[in-house]
Amino acid sequence: MADKNLTLWRRPGFLARRLHQINVALFLEEFQDLRITPVQWGVMTVVAGAPGLGHTEIAAQVGIDRVNAADVLERLEERGLIEQKRNAADRRQKCAYITGAGAQLLKENEHRVRRTHARLLKPLDKDEQKIFLALLLRLVEENNDLSRAPLKADTPA
Amino acid sequence: MADKNLTLWRRPGFLARRLHQINVALFLEEFQDLRITPVQWGVMTVVAGAPGLGHTEIAAQVGIDRVNAADVLERLEERGLIEQKRNAADRRQKCAYITGAGAQLLKENEHRVRRTHARLLKPLDKDEQKIFLALLLRLVEENNDLSRAPLKADTPA
Repeated sequence: MADKNLTLWRRPGFLARRLHQINVALFLEEFQDLRITPVQWGVMTVVAGAPGLGHTEIAAQVGIDRVNAADVLERLEERGLIEQKRNAADRRQKCAYITGAGAQLLKENEHRVRRTHARLLKPLDKDEQKIFLALLLRLVEENNDLSRAPLKADTPA
Repeated sequence: MADKNLTLWRRPGFLARRLHQINVALFLEEFQDLRITPVQWGVMTVVAGAPGLGHTEIAAQVGIDRVNAADVLERLEERGLIEQKRNAADRRQKCAYITGAGAQLLKENEHRVRRTHARLLKPLDKDEQKIFLALLLRLVEENNDLSRAPLKADTPA
């Protein structure tokens, strides 16, 4: 049994899932009173940075599927954190914009995101954190096309 | 917009989610004909390694919640890959065992898991892969208590 657990523990895929789960747990803990999830935060960040994007583009940039993006946007709209307007050129399309309340929430709580990531990376020293993040970024960038919801955002320099 | 995307791309939490998604996509691709998910594979691995475990222990070892574990076990049982028996001491509890078909599936397809992970890590050279996995393992081990579904498996040496 110990051997088998070791096998699971050593697997990159298993560890990738665990790291993701741990980050989600830390994020939800930091944002407990605001009831904001990591994906909601990601969507708000994209919408704030690029006003007027449609669901497809937002989904692609956050790395989620379109149905999920539509759900998240609807929930954020109900809370008054974003608003959606019909596209003038194509009435079937909705474009998302950050509201004043949404922009304020992003600005006032950015430190919680930083704290989440500081906690996630705390087991490593500063140099190790840099190395880890550089390697992680390369894995994600170079594998991006292979994932289910590939990102279309510009590749960072 | 490019700036905002950069912000998202540099975030450890965002990268952790992407790495997880990429691994799932690669795994599903490798196992397409068998319709096996990474979590199903993890559950079968745990069940094969420790016959007779209950749902709570299996969930804890795989790092999923109990309801999810019960669903996965039911689906695997329908396919004849595991079987469940009532616990003699507590009839409400079910214990899971690998079947011959399940054991054979694990054995015959282990190379697909290795290939999935080789593809995931391919962007890095061998030394970088070792460094990355060692740092990733430390992050997961030392943060384990903080996650939503903490593992109870013995800490690997």
